[in-house]
Amino acid sequence: MTAITTADISTAHGRIRAHIRRTPVFEPGPGSFGVPHPLHLKLELLQHTGSFKPRGAFYTLLTQTVPAAGVVAASGGNHGIAVGYAASRLGHRAEIYVPGNAPTAKVDKIAATGATVHQVGTEYADALAAARAHRDRTGALDVHAYDAPTTIAGQGTVALEWSEQAQLDTVLVAIGGGGLIAGMAAWYASRVRVIGVEPIGIPTLHAALEAGAPVDVDVRSFAADSLGARRIGTHVFPIAQAHVDRVVLVPDDGIRAAQDRLRKETGLVVEAGGATALAALICGAYTPAPGERVGVLVCGGNAPRPHPRDAPGPSA
Amino acid sequence: MTAITTADISTAHGRIRAHIRRTPVFEPGPGSFGVPHPLHLKLELLQHTGSFKPRGAFYTLLTQTVPAAGVVAASGGNHGIAVGYAASRLGHRAEIYVPGNAPTAKVDKIAATGATVHQVGTEYADALAAARAHRDRTGALDVHAYDAPTTIAGQGTVALEWSEQAQLDTVLVAIGGGGLIAGMAAWYASRVRVIGVEPIGIPTLHAALEAGAPVDVDVRSFAADSLGARRIGTHVFPIAQAHVDRVVLVPDDGIRAAQDRLRKETGLVVEAGGATALAALICGAYTPAPGERVGVLVCGGNAPRPHPRDAPGPSA
Repeated sequence: MTAITTADISTAHGRIRAHIRRTPVFEPGPGSFGVPHPLHLKLELLQHTGSFKPRGAFYTLLTQTVPAAGVVAASGGNHGIAVGYAASRLGHRAEIYVPGNAPTAKVDKIAATGATVHQVGTEYADALAAARAHRDRTGALDVHAYDAPTTIAGQGTVALEWSEQAQLDTVLVAIGGGGLIAGMAAWYASRVRVIGVEPIGIPTLHAALEAGAPVDVDVRSFAADSLGARRIGTHVFPIAQAHVDRVVLVPDDGIRAAQDRLRKETGLVVEAGGATALAALICGAYTPAPGERVGVLVCGGNAPRPHPRDAPGPSA
Repeated sequence: MTAITTADISTAHGRIRAHIRRTPVFEPGPGSFGVPHPLHLKLELLQHTGSFKPRGAFYTLLTQTVPAAGVVAASGGNHGIAVGYAASRLGHRAEIYVPGNAPTAKVDKIAATGATVHQVGTEYADALAAARAHRDRTGALDVHAYDAPTTIAGQGTVALEWSEQAQLDTVLVAIGGGGLIAGMAAWYASRVRVIGVEPIGIPTLHAALEAGAPVDVDVRSFAADSLGARRIGTHVFPIAQAHVDRVVLVPDDGIRAAQDRLRKETGLVVEAGGATALAALICGAYTPAPGERVGVLVCGGNAPRPHPRDAPGPSA
């Protein structure tokens, strides 16, 4: 187990900053989304490829030796798009393994980066096994979606950036395999309260913290294509134990409500995983104290189904 | 003709700031949208109601006496949504006249604010005549979409905010009736180069500057629902003469390309009028000098047709 330090994340930021976007922060005003508390959103869905994932992908590719066989990754979608994008930018070939339930829009987006896409099995674990077999067969560099120190340090640059942009007491972050929240928690190191948010149907970190170790969970949520990891990462877990204040759970209906509110009140099209952190405030799974400065990470926008800004509704 | 000063715009900002959003700025990185020059976008499409229009609407309603008959406005869509929204927030009734070509999505959004919507005639001028008849009949306060000092001063707060957020040499701004560019040009007062951008098919300010006075133009562009004013405002024109560096024209295909690029490379759904300023850079209608710090105002997002983030394409 490698500890990730704030110095590691600063180093990562220096390496990747020319390749990533410094995503904007946005205060939509009190009352927005039906939440009386003022919120501070970081619009990481405006990152290249539509999610935070290029941060870890670039850092991995820029710090490891990439063989002629190129890179390989397993992904529910966003990580695959990011690895394909980073590989293309840096001149490497990429092979991406995705589960059969990956949304067509994401599969198409991976292919559009120039990567070769392989759809296998029915869930992320199947794609992961196939990617590892490919690595063993070809020697390609395996870029893990969340459970690798370079991935975690890269994702942690979201928090580094955010801490330059805003003074916050608390940040809410959605959890899939945990690479993002681990990187952010490692950066904040309990100086800012990090609240993890998971769908009730995919309580990956919640169950691990209760059990005292990573455990398998069922994956039963419409947010599975971005948050559907069966087990929290082994590099992720100790960081979460040390620096994640708590994990709250939200129902799928709450995630849908957050998507709808974001679309109607800001026009932003956000995937289920990208709306999950906001859902915790809309549902009341997390209630800020008066005066608490609360940040919400909007981590991805690659909505599998169109959510056009065609429905009426006043802005809040 | 009332001159609009920077002090007027500061006053407007103080009056409306509790009601509007400070919209974020975003640097998507060099190469984005196929434009080699680094750009600085202000995401005013994230404003309440999806466009900059509430700035002027709130300032008008907060500084004028609103009679029991409430407010009335003519609008191609966005101004009507904004007046309906501001009236609702401030407890006034609103009647909005829109032309028959107003997109259903915008008409529905006006109605959702609680305003009464009347569709009349075929273009903005028809709606304007009907709104004036309503004002004369009922005594309602007429909130002009662009040609009134309070509207212009309110829209100018976009530039005030932006100048707090970024040091720029040049800003590109789309032109409909000219309220937005007049307010921004009044704020910058030639300290920053203001470039107006119009569709080739609606050269409202371009033709007026050539003629030396406001003149009628034909309205022939798919951006007409947001930029379709037949004649530049009389309050707008002298400000534009003094402080707009020049007006460049872009074809509808360039505006469509800008919409598509924004959607594919950022996920942002932007209406034709909101993509028009960026189109000038994509088409080469405006070419920045090396080192020039260029800002692009993305002024509205209420796309009449769905532009879901469903098409593949790598981020730039």
